[in-house]
Amino acid sequence: MAKNTDTRFELYYWPLIPGRGEFPRLVLEEAGADYVDVGRLSRDEGGGVEAIVAMLDGADDAQLPYAPPILRDGELVLAQSAAICHYLGLQLGLVPEDETSRWAALQIQLTVADLVDETHDTHHPIAVSLYYEDQQAESAKRASAFLESRMPKFLGYFELVLERAGGAWMLGDAFSYVDLSVFHVLEGLAYAFPNAFAAFDRRIPRLLELRGRVTERPRVAGYLASTRRLPFNEHGIFRRYPELDRP
Amino acid sequence: MAKNTDTRFELYYWPLIPGRGEFPRLVLEEAGADYVDVGRLSRDEGGGVEAIVAMLDGADDAQLPYAPPILRDGELVLAQSAAICHYLGLQLGLVPEDETSRWAALQIQLTVADLVDETHDTHHPIAVSLYYEDQQAESAKRASAFLESRMPKFLGYFELVLERAGGAWMLGDAFSYVDLSVFHVLEGLAYAFPNAFAAFDRRIPRLLELRGRVTERPRVAGYLASTRRLPFNEHGIFRRYPELDRP
Repeated sequence: MAKNTDTRFELYYWPLIPGRGEFPRLVLEEAGADYVDVGRLSRDEGGGVEAIVAMLDGADDAQLPYAPPILRDGELVLAQSAAICHYLGLQLGLVPEDETSRWAALQIQLTVADLVDETHDTHHPIAVSLYYEDQQAESAKRASAFLESRMPKFLGYFELVLERAGGAWMLGDAFSYVDLSVFHVLEGLAYAFPNAFAAFDRRIPRLLELRGRVTERPRVAGYLASTRRLPFNEHGIFRRYPELDRP
Repeated sequence: MAKNTDTRFELYYWPLIPGRGEFPRLVLEEAGADYVDVGRLSRDEGGGVEAIVAMLDGADDAQLPYAPPILRDGELVLAQSAAICHYLGLQLGLVPEDETSRWAALQIQLTVADLVDETHDTHHPIAVSLYYEDQQAESAKRASAFLESRMPKFLGYFELVLERAGGAWMLGDAFSYVDLSVFHVLEGLAYAFPNAFAAFDRRIPRLLELRGRVTERPRVAGYLASTRRLPFNEHGIFRRYPELDRP
């Protein structure tokens, strides 16, 4: 599908958290793409939560999204963060040309998404409709199992993929959107579980190097220093609740 | 990527449960594809759990998978059920030609995968490393929230997508791999939560019709009547624990 060059990308995501919207946002930023972060515009500018809700209602009969993040590119409306990142990677040259690498990218991205889901459930193991405080005892159990076995399994896998790729990036020598997502999930885990992450990080030296390399990319560095980058907080996926971290 | 016509597809998945392997298996069956269900071969035939473990070790330096299901198509090794279904849909003509429909297919498939994950967590809300019996109290809470709000939200969304598509199938007039996955998740939910599903199903008349239409497709019907179709059981994703269902 040719890029709709006469339109800007529109990203729809909740305005107060990085959340799952941060994965496509990082791709747009690294590419220097022309985009509008609609949720962060004011209501008068046609943005805010109202604009997101209108997209979820599919008022204009475009493909109906289930949840944010949602990307609009001309006539195309696309939800699901991994699908959006893959689409943007193809549109913006942030995934290699060969088909094998492209399928590898999607596979890794979906595994990142699984890790994100499991991270979210450390503070919401029972119901997204309840507050953390209403499921805190169960969260302690789930977070313990997550830090004991799940985080090490996922990160150990990503470390091994990077090692086998034999280059600086997850797909080898070619930088791709996947590296941005791996970077962000490392940032998020280090934020949410500083003690557990620090105790583990000697086992993922290559991933830590990748994380550093991503922050040195000029556009990423500029973005991270800007107000467009929303800080992590206790309303998103990666929440710092000391009682869920290792002592 | 051209189909490697000199090789058969190889599907790697645990031999005793339908699990996430059932989603690509249904695509292969509907297409009448030449495939080997490696996990269900005997060890002497090069199959079984040993063959799956060897793939997870990535012994031949192919793209390293995180978890089954895994598809091998010649040199390509691909994990993640949604990515495999999308790949097979493209290879086997089970997704429309136009790019908009293809992105819509991937988006819906990823939302099916999210519903599958949440269904799984109704019996494993704390840790996959624990037995259900060791997290039964938490499961009762999570299943209650799932049946109260999550299952209705997901299925209501799929019903609305189908309604707006304006045809017999999730993408409209064109049958696609997505319809097979929606069929299977409906089968699974009806198996796991017969009371809750029966109480809800009047709200999803179009999905129930789609479910019936899928079972009438000749290859699907032949497959469902065969021993290749593994029955649901209490080791997989969709488990019938009466105490988690509505009374």
